[in-house]
Amino acid sequence: MFSITSRVYYQDTDAGGVIYHSKYLDFCERARTEFLRKHNIEQTELAKKENIIFVVRNLNIEYVASGKLDDLLEITVKITNLIGVRIFMEQKILRKSDNVLLAKLIVEIVTINQEFKPVRMPQELKEKLLS
Amino acid sequence: MFSITSRVYYQDTDAGGVIYHSKYLDFCERARTEFLRKHNIEQTELAKKENIIFVVRNLNIEYVASGKLDDLLEITVKITNLIGVRIFMEQKILRKSDNVLLAKLIVEIVTINQEFKPVRMPQELKEKLLS
Amino acid sequence: MFSITSRVYYQDTDAGGVIYHSKYLDFCERARTEFLRKHNIEQTELAKKENIIFVVRNLNIEYVASGKLDDLLEITVKITNLIGVRIFMEQKILRKSDNVLLAKLIVEIVTINQEFKPVRMPQELKEKLLS
Amino acid sequence: MFSITSRVYYQDTDAGGVIYHSKYLDFCERARTEFLRKHNIEQTELAKKENIIFVVRNLNIEYVASGKLDDLLEITVKITNLIGVRIFMEQKILRKSDNVLLAKLIVEIVTINQEFKPVRMPQELKEKLLS
Repeated sequence: MFSITSRVYYQDTDAGGVIYHSKYLDFCERARTEFLRKHNIEQTELAKKENIIFVVRNLNIEYVASGKLDDLLEITVKITNLIGVRIFMEQKILRKSDNVLLAKLIVEIVTINQEFKPVRMPQELKEKLLS
Repeated sequence: MFSITSRVYYQDTDAGGVIYHSKYLDFCERARTEFLRKHNIEQTELAKKENIIFVVRNLNIEYVASGKLDDLLEITVKITNLIGVRIFMEQKILRKSDNVLLAKLIVEIVTINQEFKPVRMPQELKEKLLS
Repeated sequence: MFSITSRVYYQDTDAGGVIYHSKYLDFCERARTEFLRKHNIEQTELAKKENIIFVVRNLNIEYVASGKLDDLLEITVKITNLIGVRIFMEQKILRKSDNVLLAKLIVEIVTINQEFKPVRMPQELKEKLLS
Repeated sequence: MFSITSRVYYQDTDAGGVIYHSKYLDFCERARTEFLRKHNIEQTELAKKENIIFVVRNLNIEYVASGKLDDLLEITVKITNLIGVRIFMEQKILRKSDNVLLAKLIVEIVTINQEFKPVRMPQELKEKLLS
């Protein structure tokens, strides 16, 4: 299972003393980007050379427990389905010290071009994603 | 229907030229907070006096169209259900100039105390919310 | 003196219970953008039609007092100098309820083109800014 | 010289195609926190056990070149002075691939307690910082 680790800084927290709820999406984006990079997909190049951009189409997040300042997080990425212009991913955000699940994200990514039209993934891209 | 308007600034956009996907959650939080204020609920006071905090428990967002720099947004808030410790809300983010729907959010809010335990909403709070 | 008002939401605060320090820059950007709009300058159009982008070149911020959740802020904008490719502005962030100064910003803006080269402001743009 | 590396993700960029200007402060906070941790100072503990919080009092940032999506950044931290309640630090943000300087930050940190009053650093804290 692919994962990255990321620290919780003041910038990620709010006055409730916990990670601000939209920041979990930012942690998840970092993990997806590193997942893509690990599969030899760099988004800047993909946009320039192939005119393909990944955008989030739908997202569900369940908040299970609260992350706090100085926590070390582990964020996982798993492709659950890949069809046409859509990639479905499951992501977990865990507190690394005790492996407690903080949040679980299901995200649907769509491939579009710079004119914001859906474009089917080239076979090579699909293969990279599933490699 | 309750709504607020909010402008899209550089800080809300990303290198794709559109609103960054987690920022929609931030716009929605602003709208919910103003919705609460309009119902005479100020979160700072509620935390101090009643030891009640609203936290997001679950959230689903569908991204329908892309908001851009300088767009004026309208963000709506509607309570769809309210039971025990849970408030369910539906929110829409629209581009005000042509009323196009950009995103639709369904959010489940839970009332907890500062020890992060769920607490049932006092009757008075419920009445304010539904007033 | 030009100013806007803006509310402090959870998204603007951190676990210290106050506005996170970089968020003051975001409030200031909103005020500068509305200042420009009031002088009939819309940045999206300026970029498209005149290939001119405003970027921050240097910034100094003094933090005087701490803003908190639910505070209503007033953010001012004043041009102090305008020469060649540079605009110097002074901005204050005040708590509106008691007019206490929270932070003071001095910012140097430079006009560049999409190739990131400095470009002198057209006379018309200068006139709008000083109108 | 202490430094950390950090990747530039979509969340750090804006519609100008570059890192949004306030995000440099966020990268710098991450570096300062890791600098503290390396000197055996964890801010959560320091707040709980010693009632000492670090806050930014003044900050100057010069933007030299534009960071972009997918850049790998190196962020340095150096204490330049430490006296009474004040710590002065110099930080650089460099693009790691070619060592180009993107921004330079000078920051004054003040130690306060939870009542927001300045408190002199205990000798032990000073020694840790300078070790």
